[in-house]
Amino acid sequence: MRKTKKYCYGFCVFTSIIINILFTINLYFGGGGGGGGGGCGLSWSEKAAAEAEAVAAISCSGHGRAYLDGSVDSDGRPVCECYACHVGIDCSQLSPGCAADADSGDPIFLEPFWMQHPTNSAILVSGWHRMSYGYNDKSYMSVELENYIRKLHSIVGNAITEDRYIVFGIGSSQLLNAAVYALSSETSSSPSNVVASIPFYPMYRTQTVFFNSKNFQFQGDTKAWQLNNSTNMDVVEFVTSPNNPDGELKKSVLGGKTIYDHAYFWPHFTPVPAPSDQDLMLFTLSKLTGHAGSRFGWAVIKDKDVYEKMLAYIKVADLGISKDTQLRVLKLLKVVVEDEGKTFFKFAYNKMKDRWDALTSVFSKSTRFSIQHRHPLQCTFFNETRLASPAYAWVKCEREEEDDCKAVLEAANIIGRAGSMFSDKDRHVRLSLIKSQDDFDLLLQRLTELVSLENGSIQTM
Amino acid sequence: MRKTKKYCYGFCVFTSIIINILFTINLYFGGGGGGGGGGCGLSWSEKAAAEAEAVAAISCSGHGRAYLDGSVDSDGRPVCECYACHVGIDCSQLSPGCAADADSGDPIFLEPFWMQHPTNSAILVSGWHRMSYGYNDKSYMSVELENYIRKLHSIVGNAITEDRYIVFGIGSSQLLNAAVYALSSETSSSPSNVVASIPFYPMYRTQTVFFNSKNFQFQGDTKAWQLNNSTNMDVVEFVTSPNNPDGELKKSVLGGKTIYDHAYFWPHFTPVPAPSDQDLMLFTLSKLTGHAGSRFGWAVIKDKDVYEKMLAYIKVADLGISKDTQLRVLKLLKVVVEDEGKTFFKFAYNKMKDRWDALTSVFSKSTRFSIQHRHPLQCTFFNETRLASPAYAWVKCEREEEDDCKAVLEAANIIGRAGSMFSDKDRHVRLSLIKSQDDFDLLLQRLTELVSLENGSIQTM
Repeated sequence: MRKTKKYCYGFCVFTSIIINILFTINLYFGGGGGGGGGGCGLSWSEKAAAEAEAVAAISCSGHGRAYLDGSVDSDGRPVCECYACHVGIDCSQLSPGCAADADSGDPIFLEPFWMQHPTNSAILVSGWHRMSYGYNDKSYMSVELENYIRKLHSIVGNAITEDRYIVFGIGSSQLLNAAVYALSSETSSSPSNVVASIPFYPMYRTQTVFFNSKNFQFQGDTKAWQLNNSTNMDVVEFVTSPNNPDGELKKSVLGGKTIYDHAYFWPHFTPVPAPSDQDLMLFTLSKLTGHAGSRFGWAVIKDKDVYEKMLAYIKVADLGISKDTQLRVLKLLKVVVEDEGKTFFKFAYNKMKDRWDALTSVFSKSTRFSIQHRHPLQCTFFNETRLASPAYAWVKCEREEEDDCKAVLEAANIIGRAGSMFSDKDRHVRLSLIKSQDDFDLLLQRLTELVSLENGSIQTM
Repeated sequence: MRKTKKYCYGFCVFTSIIINILFTINLYFGGGGGGGGGGCGLSWSEKAAAEAEAVAAISCSGHGRAYLDGSVDSDGRPVCECYACHVGIDCSQLSPGCAADADSGDPIFLEPFWMQHPTNSAILVSGWHRMSYGYNDKSYMSVELENYIRKLHSIVGNAITEDRYIVFGIGSSQLLNAAVYALSSETSSSPSNVVASIPFYPMYRTQTVFFNSKNFQFQGDTKAWQLNNSTNMDVVEFVTSPNNPDGELKKSVLGGKTIYDHAYFWPHFTPVPAPSDQDLMLFTLSKLTGHAGSRFGWAVIKDKDVYEKMLAYIKVADLGISKDTQLRVLKLLKVVVEDEGKTFFKFAYNKMKDRWDALTSVFSKSTRFSIQHRHPLQCTFFNETRLASPAYAWVKCEREEEDDCKAVLEAANIIGRAGSMFSDKDRHVRLSLIKSQDDFDLLLQRLTELVSLENGSIQTM
C-alpha cells in the first residue's frame, strides 16, 4: 500500500520534472517573465509560478529540498539543502555515524501531506498584496481567517468558540506571554505568580524570567506552590493539555486564573473526548498543520477585558501579525477543513499511529527503558475509542544507576531533550516523534540496536 | 506623460481582465486545479496563479481593491474593499463630506510601483515551503535575505554593514524594545533610563511603559533629562533620523548608548549625505518598500554582545520571524536593487517630491499655518543637492489663540495626529503624506479650501 503510494508519487514527481525542465529552459534561457503568458491565460503571475515549480522539481533524493529562498550555486540557481545525516549534491549520501536527532519539536511529519496536496495549498502573493498595517476594518486580523478558525474548531470538536473572542499571535509563543500579561496583576507592588505542573514546557519559565516584568514572576511547580503558599495570593497557572513532554490530558490544579495551552489538542495526537470550554485557550498552527516556520497561533478567550489586553499586547509588541502569513494560513486551513477534516486528520493520525506502533514494539522488548502509558479514550472526531499518539515519547531509564537518561541515549548516538529541561528528573528524556520520516527511521534504528543490546554489556555502545 | 502611463496601464489591466475572465470561467466552472496545466507547462501552481490574477483583475475603479483573503459575496467570490471615502460595489461613489484622514503612517504611496512591476515582485508559496522552525543552518533568518539587505545598503549608501551583525524583527516595532532590552542594565536594582528628544515617535514611550520591565524605565525628553540628572547614570537614548514627526536629521544628544531609528533614512524621504555608521541602527520594510502589512524590520549592530541579546529577545518572544514573510521580502528587495536601485528610488522620490511641491504651494499662501523648514543637502545616492521630502508634514497653527491645531484642522474635516502624541505642544499637528493618492488628493483639496478661507472668518468651515 505504502509502496504503491510511493510509486504514484514518484511518477507524479517525474512527470512534473519533465514538464518543468521544458518550462524552466524556456524561463531561464528564453527571457521569461511578464508578457502575455505561455498559452494558459496567465500573465504576470506565470513567472513566479514557474519558479516555484522549477525549484520544487529539483531532485534531492527525498533527503533534502531546494527552496526559492535557499542556497544557490555560482550561477544563482537553487541547490539542494540536505536534511540531517545526508550529504552530496542530491543529498543521496548518508553521513556515517550521524546521530539520530530527536531533540526539537519541528513538525516535519506533515510535509508529505502538503506535497501530496500541492494545488489547493499554494498561494500566489502579488507585490501589492495587503501593504497596509490593517485590514479594511482597521483590525490587524483577517476576518476570513478568523471565520475558518472557528469553523475548524467546530468540525474537530476540540474547542468552544461561540461567543468567544479570538486573538492572533506570532506562534503560540508570543501568546504565552501575552496571556500572562493579560491575566496578571496591574500593580507592581504585588506581582502575579506564574506556575506550571512538572514536567512542563520550558518556555513558560524562560519567557517570564526573560521579560523580567514588575507585574509577574515565575514560581515553578504548581503543587509545590500550593503546599507552601496561602490560597489568596494572585496566581496564573499554565496547564498544557495534552502535556508537553508526556502527552497527558491535564486539568488545572488550583482552579483559578489558568492559561490552557492546547498546542497538541488535535486528533492526530490525542483522542478528543469533548470540546474544551476554558476561559483562555491557546492553539498553534505549528502542531496542527506542521507549519512551524510561519509563526502563527491564536487564543480563544471568554472575557472581554482579557481579550482587549491581549490585543493591546500584540499591537504594542509588533503592530500585528504578518498579512502574508495570514493569507497562507487561510489557504492551509481551507485544505484542512475540506471533507470535514477527514482527509487531513486521517493522514496525520495514521502517521503518528504508525510511529507509535513501531516505537512501542521496540520498547516492549526492553526492561532498561520504558515509555509513558497511553490511555484509551473515546475520540468524538473519529467516533471511536483510541490510544493517544503523542508528539513525544517520554522515556524513562529504569536502571537505578542510569539517572542521566539523556547521556545514556547519547552514548547510543541518540539525541533527546533532558528531563531537567522540563523541570523534572534527568532519569527522563523526551524524544520527538514529529520530525521527518528520515529522522524517525534513524531514531527507530538506533533504539532497536540499543534495546537489542540489553542482554549484553551496557557499555557496548 | 502621466496620462499616457495611465492609459497604458489601463490597457494592460483591460487585457488582463479579458484573459482572466476566460481563465476564471474555466477555473471556477471547469473544475480547475491540478492536472497537467492549461498549456503553459505549469501544473500544481496554475490554480493559485489564476486565482491571484482573477482577484487582481476585479475592477474597483481605482478606489478599492479585492483580495484573495478579503470580503466575499454570497457565492464566495472576492468583492471590492473600498478605500476610505469611497463606496459602492465597484467603489466608484464618493462619500459626501468624508474626512481627509492624514493620521496614520500607512505607506500606500508605493502601491502603484508594485502594481506596475507585477511579474518580478510576485511569489508563489507552495504548501510545503519552509515548514521548519529554522533554516538549514538552524538560524531563524534567511542568509539570502541578509545578503540582499547588505547589498541594498551598499547600493543606497545609507548604512555601513561591513563587519556588522544583522537581526530581523517583526517590523522595526519589535526591534525597538529588543534594542532597549539589549542595551539596558542587567540588574533590576538600577534600571536603565530610556529617553528621546521631543518631538518623538510615541511607540518608544508606549512600549517601555507597557512592558513594565525591572531593567528599564521611560524618562521622557533627552534634554530635560540632561539638565536634571548626573552624567554617570545609565541611559539609553532613542534618536530618530530622519525624525518622526518632523523629518529632521538628528544626532545623539548624550553621546552614550544610542538606538538610531533609521526607518525614514531612504532617498525618497531625505537626501542621504553619507552612510550611517552608528552602533545600533534600525530599519523597516514598511517605510522602504511600503509593505507595512508584512511586519519586517532589521537591526544593524556593531557589538557582538548586543547582537546576541537582540537575537535572544526575538527567539524568546516568538521563536523567529515568519518564513513566508522572509521569502516575500527577499523577492521585493530583488526588485528594489534592480538597476542599482535607480528605478525604485526614482519612483518613490518623485512621488514624495510631487506631494511636497503641491503641499508647499498651498502652505505658501497661508499665514495661519506653517510647515517645517526643509534644508537642501547633498544626496550621494542621486548625486545632487536636494530638499528633503519627509513622510509627514509637521504643521504649526500660527495664530495665538489656536493652540489646539488638531481641532482646528478637524473643524475643516482634516484628521491629523496631535503634537501631544509626540510629547510636543498641540500647536503642532502631524499630517501623513505617504497614504494613497486618493487620501493625499482629498487632503490637498481640504487644505486648499482651508487656506483659501483665511481672509474670511476662521469659523467658516
